[in-house]
Amino acid sequence: MANTPLIGSAIIGQSGGPSAVINASAYGVIRTALDSEYITKVYGASHGIKGVLNDRLFVMDEEDPKELEKLLYTPSSALGSCRYKMKDPDVDDTDYKRILEIFKKYNVRYFFYNGGNDSMDTCNKISRYCAKMDYECRVIGVPKTIDNDLYGTDHCPGFASAAKYIATSLMEVSRDSRVYDVGQITIVECMGRHAGWLTAAACLGNLYGDGPDLIYLPEVDFDMDQFLADVKRVYDETGKCLVAVSEGVHYADGSFVSEAKTSGTDGFGHAQLGGLAARLAALVKAETGAKVRGIELSLLQRCGSHCASATDIEESFNAGKAAVKAALSGTTGKMVGFRCDRTDGYKCEYVLLDLMDVANAEQKVPLEWITPEHNGVTKDFVAYCLPLIQGETKQPKITGLPDFAHLKKVLAK
Amino acid sequence: MANTPLIGSAIIGQSGGPSAVINASAYGVIRTALDSEYITKVYGASHGIKGVLNDRLFVMDEEDPKELEKLLYTPSSALGSCRYKMKDPDVDDTDYKRILEIFKKYNVRYFFYNGGNDSMDTCNKISRYCAKMDYECRVIGVPKTIDNDLYGTDHCPGFASAAKYIATSLMEVSRDSRVYDVGQITIVECMGRHAGWLTAAACLGNLYGDGPDLIYLPEVDFDMDQFLADVKRVYDETGKCLVAVSEGVHYADGSFVSEAKTSGTDGFGHAQLGGLAARLAALVKAETGAKVRGIELSLLQRCGSHCASATDIEESFNAGKAAVKAALSGTTGKMVGFRCDRTDGYKCEYVLLDLMDVANAEQKVPLEWITPEHNGVTKDFVAYCLPLIQGETKQPKITGLPDFAHLKKVLAK
Repeated sequence: MANTPLIGSAIIGQSGGPSAVINASAYGVIRTALDSEYITKVYGASHGIKGVLNDRLFVMDEEDPKELEKLLYTPSSALGSCRYKMKDPDVDDTDYKRILEIFKKYNVRYFFYNGGNDSMDTCNKISRYCAKMDYECRVIGVPKTIDNDLYGTDHCPGFASAAKYIATSLMEVSRDSRVYDVGQITIVECMGRHAGWLTAAACLGNLYGDGPDLIYLPEVDFDMDQFLADVKRVYDETGKCLVAVSEGVHYADGSFVSEAKTSGTDGFGHAQLGGLAARLAALVKAETGAKVRGIELSLLQRCGSHCASATDIEESFNAGKAAVKAALSGTTGKMVGFRCDRTDGYKCEYVLLDLMDVANAEQKVPLEWITPEHNGVTKDFVAYCLPLIQGETKQPKITGLPDFAHLKKVLAK
Repeated sequence: MANTPLIGSAIIGQSGGPSAVINASAYGVIRTALDSEYITKVYGASHGIKGVLNDRLFVMDEEDPKELEKLLYTPSSALGSCRYKMKDPDVDDTDYKRILEIFKKYNVRYFFYNGGNDSMDTCNKISRYCAKMDYECRVIGVPKTIDNDLYGTDHCPGFASAAKYIATSLMEVSRDSRVYDVGQITIVECMGRHAGWLTAAACLGNLYGDGPDLIYLPEVDFDMDQFLADVKRVYDETGKCLVAVSEGVHYADGSFVSEAKTSGTDGFGHAQLGGLAARLAALVKAETGAKVRGIELSLLQRCGSHCASATDIEESFNAGKAAVKAALSGTTGKMVGFRCDRTDGYKCEYVLLDLMDVANAEQKVPLEWITPEHNGVTKDFVAYCLPLIQGETKQPKITGLPDFAHLKKVLAK
């Protein structure tokens, strides 16, 4: 029967860009799997699916439980990550045969994959291949992406912590960049190639008067003339201007503003030294003559575990736990998702979504949450985002620094 | 008698680049002055000495005590800052005459100036001018600089919080930038034009295996060939390399690496789009062919109040308090400094230094704390720095975000 717990081992892998809380999800899986009477062994794949392909599996049963618990507060992917796009098994099944070989070698009956869109695609393909080959293995996706663009779920683990980091940092930068009695324009670049969720989160400080004046998302076309006019207007009115802009803003023809060709190179033969923030800063400086500073939040925004949202940590852990519980009760080919209710406080339920639906779709900021001028977000976004960033991390400290997990990573033989 | 408390009002001004805790010092001054029976009124100068020159003084007595207390956890200069270099009064005493006029108008008998080197110079000039004009006003400098380069004091308020932010961020970035099974080189640029204290602080995560491989400070000449060879060696050995570099690194001829001329411009006619990190990243990429990322910590490192050191907050407050106590007991022409003992735990004493000695001198990282290879720092630096970053901020939160002080800023008439 499908809902009988299978006796066998479990693999957890992590994939794609890291986040402040992806290890909280991994810990949710590992802890729950270790505690299950049906799961005989828990393996962590080194660098995601590549660890399976290369037979590099770490035995989680060998880890100190206290170090494992620190995964709740340790950023980046503790098991190592990869960016590996699986081929269609109908075109080339080499990898799939190898995965099945490893699954059989270790009697793997549970496979959990912790990542974003591509990872859910991998998960989906493995799930279907196992079914096709009549190998019983329960495959569950555990979502993770600071980009918040996974389809079908209210939000994604990892988004809220990055959002909290960005909102907090923008509040601080807002204070700093307005401190002098001379003009200053500051442009902050946030991650988000196709979806503007993170950049939108910059707005939250505006609840308290400490946020950006202008916000530009990739959901709408970027108009350079309008952008320069917006900045100039705010600057002329107040002597200051703070802008949050998504790395993925693009012109109407789809070309990224960050990659648009300029007439020269930097002298080293590279088309571009700085990123989008530096590029926009140079243009704004030319237009206004003001002192302009470009700031790229870069990796800081996705690994800022010291500023993680307690809500995000809890939900990320629970997503991992829910994945194991679902697998134990017979589910396969699903991703854990969140269904949230904000009508009377905030409630989050864990649901199971078809991997097939999730795999290759993107969830973007609704257009009606973007102001008609395309330079800000509405109260609807604030109502959506604010519950997610509540609560401060209880990250343990050692000599005033974060006390991250240090795993032994004993290889399975 | 000089040690009789003077009856009169006090002015506190803030100047130079902000920090995460400069307001903690201001609060130390304001709270202690408000509580003094001799100080009749406490004014905050709008944008430092310019607020005095422009007769724009905020009445601190009118502020809500609870909001004032939030200054302990509010970054940047709450009263506004300026960068205003006072002329030598023997050359042009216009500003000094105006300052004296304002001092007399408000019966100002206490003047506290909260800032770095230039601010101490201002403080010193005002102190001497008042003495020369036989106007009794007690002038005390309250140090502040994330650069940690003020002469004569063990360290400066503001340094430790920026150091904690940098060490913490580098630990997080270290995890993030080593997550993939492909090569990656990451170069992080820290503030510090002439002194490398902040960049050195990046090393602290190495206590736990999560810090940079290489560190470059402006105290020694930068050798580009050696730098590229260092990075290549680490990268070849480990497949990864994390570098912390001070914005102020310079060649043997004194020219800043960030400003060295290249053969072209960026196409907009600007010589440079990105900063030093972007420039070094481009060079390293050309040398190694690796994936290279440049990260500039920019304003984030100096306003990161959410990651402030509790020790720094406490010492900053105490420095402000000590300034008022010293002034009340008759001192003038001094700056509050720290004398620290690390032989048996950590102890910090408050001392008074001659403004004349402090103004215009710079304290740099001792050369013997820099490794012979000029690409790292020694244990002596760790022993020096670690006590300063101890303790987490108790910053109040509102809806998951920092609850900064909002002052009414009632102008004195």
